[in-house]
Amino acid sequence: MIDLKQKILAAVDDDLKAIEKALAENLNPYFDLVAQVAGHILFAGGKRLRPLLMVLGARLCGYAGNHAARFSTIFEYLHAATLLHDDLVDGAVMRRGRQVANRVWDNSTAVLTGDFLLARGLSIAADTGLCAVIQTIAQITENMSQGEIRQLEKRGDTTLTEDEYLDLIRCKTAILFQGACRTGALLAGAGIAKVQSLTDYGNHLGLAFQMADDLLDYTQDLASLGKHAGADLREGKLTLPMIHALSRATPTDRSRMSALLGKPDFTCAEFVALTEMLVRHGGIAYTQAQAAVHIRMAKQKLQVFSDSPTRDILMDIADYALVRKA
Amino acid sequence: MIDLKQKILAAVDDDLKAIEKALAENLNPYFDLVAQVAGHILFAGGKRLRPLLMVLGARLCGYAGNHAARFSTIFEYLHAATLLHDDLVDGAVMRRGRQVANRVWDNSTAVLTGDFLLARGLSIAADTGLCAVIQTIAQITENMSQGEIRQLEKRGDTTLTEDEYLDLIRCKTAILFQGACRTGALLAGAGIAKVQSLTDYGNHLGLAFQMADDLLDYTQDLASLGKHAGADLREGKLTLPMIHALSRATPTDRSRMSALLGKPDFTCAEFVALTEMLVRHGGIAYTQAQAAVHIRMAKQKLQVFSDSPTRDILMDIADYALVRKA
Repeated sequence: MIDLKQKILAAVDDDLKAIEKALAENLNPYFDLVAQVAGHILFAGGKRLRPLLMVLGARLCGYAGNHAARFSTIFEYLHAATLLHDDLVDGAVMRRGRQVANRVWDNSTAVLTGDFLLARGLSIAADTGLCAVIQTIAQITENMSQGEIRQLEKRGDTTLTEDEYLDLIRCKTAILFQGACRTGALLAGAGIAKVQSLTDYGNHLGLAFQMADDLLDYTQDLASLGKHAGADLREGKLTLPMIHALSRATPTDRSRMSALLGKPDFTCAEFVALTEMLVRHGGIAYTQAQAAVHIRMAKQKLQVFSDSPTRDILMDIADYALVRKA
Repeated sequence: MIDLKQKILAAVDDDLKAIEKALAENLNPYFDLVAQVAGHILFAGGKRLRPLLMVLGARLCGYAGNHAARFSTIFEYLHAATLLHDDLVDGAVMRRGRQVANRVWDNSTAVLTGDFLLARGLSIAADTGLCAVIQTIAQITENMSQGEIRQLEKRGDTTLTEDEYLDLIRCKTAILFQGACRTGALLAGAGIAKVQSLTDYGNHLGLAFQMADDLLDYTQDLASLGKHAGADLREGKLTLPMIHALSRATPTDRSRMSALLGKPDFTCAEFVALTEMLVRHGGIAYTQAQAAVHIRMAKQKLQVFSDSPTRDILMDIADYALVRKA
């Protein structure tokens, strides 16, 4: 699996460098504080997957301009803006190995810096001069904010259904992946079929990516019970592994599992017992299988494009989304 | 003065009703919570001045479409989004006679609902299909968020200059007034000269409006020392009346005035003494004069349009901004 990651990173090395440069340039640090706070979250080792998808999507559709890296920053800024507001909403403590911004500074600073990053993203979107791109960005912001609110409403709710979960992760994650891929195609002036194929690729990739992320919460660092394990559970977020397991569990197991949701001080033993139940009642396997289905669909959507190194990378990224460990 | 207010209200009665209807319709309450929280701030007796300016600006430029009220909601949604985040940042307690949303609900809800309203505004802007409108909205959000951050940085700073103050109120208030007027002209397909004139009208009106607002903090309810008086002072916000008075005051008075900035528990006697110093050192009169200058400039910008009932209302609104008591 390390081979796949290394292969992707080698193939996109120049793109990642261009994206990194553009992220710093476009931050446009009128004010030191913004640069610091935004920098804290923007330059803390993110994968840059969202901007990369836009850049690759544009290239796949034959984009020949010089603005791909610059426009791709939209998707990292929107992502960072959401993280800043999310961490406040979730009461999170750590993010990417650093203390969250609303603790390093305060809630006000985190809120306003998030607003600033969102506004920067919009401004850059407006600079494309393409109404279809701007409409895509508007739709992303609207869906993401709806998803966040719904997630807040559903916190601690053990009756969340698989459909509701899918809608949540679509708003929370897939819409941004989808928008990045779509924007790449739009920038390149691709025809409607290609725009739609890349949009669909992004959607399925995003859904699978989030399912894989939700799995990590129960499978990562299990031996050491590292601080990241069980974070969703602690925050009262029901995800697919548990939704599926709850639907299959015996009444006794169901109430044992439900009792841990939103309980911030569960013990190691309780968490181990929970993950065993998730395995026993098929929650882990089902989630893995669903993520795999979406990856297959994502890759299938790329069939409309002729074979090329860029298509290969997008295929590899889809495969990697499924097997990544962090 | 009541005559002027009544005259304006009578002239725009139908417009205000259409705006009110569109505000509820476009809120598009997918989720009860959003509707409640957004409704709390949106339907608490705002003046709807920003959407009204867009509607009147469009009419002045001959807009013949049916979407003025709908598109005008952008400016009330952006305004409400800013208020939700501001109240959290300022630690405010009351807004428009109601408890602020982040106290009725919580910080998370206020942040996410603000994000949702901003996203709704963007979505409606994208629906215009006019890139120039969308660019205007993107510029508004960027300027407003910059202004908010700068205001937070400058809180309690007694060295704030008049130029810095002007830049703050431009970002905080004038940019939205200006954007609303500009969007009206753009919707109507007005030529560049008319677009610029209405943009300038909105800018000067917004600056004067904020100066008048800042004056109210020191002149409103002074007899009763109502809870709104001195709010800026309490929050550490230096505004023009005090900036100017500080520049003219004796060293003794200057340190007495400075000592009260950002002091939440000043006494009635201290506040009365402060306002007396603001009068004595010319802060009140200077601010009134500056606001009057901007109103004159705003009205002058309307000269490019031929005489019409709509132009009269915009003139009246400019006059009213200067003399309003709330």
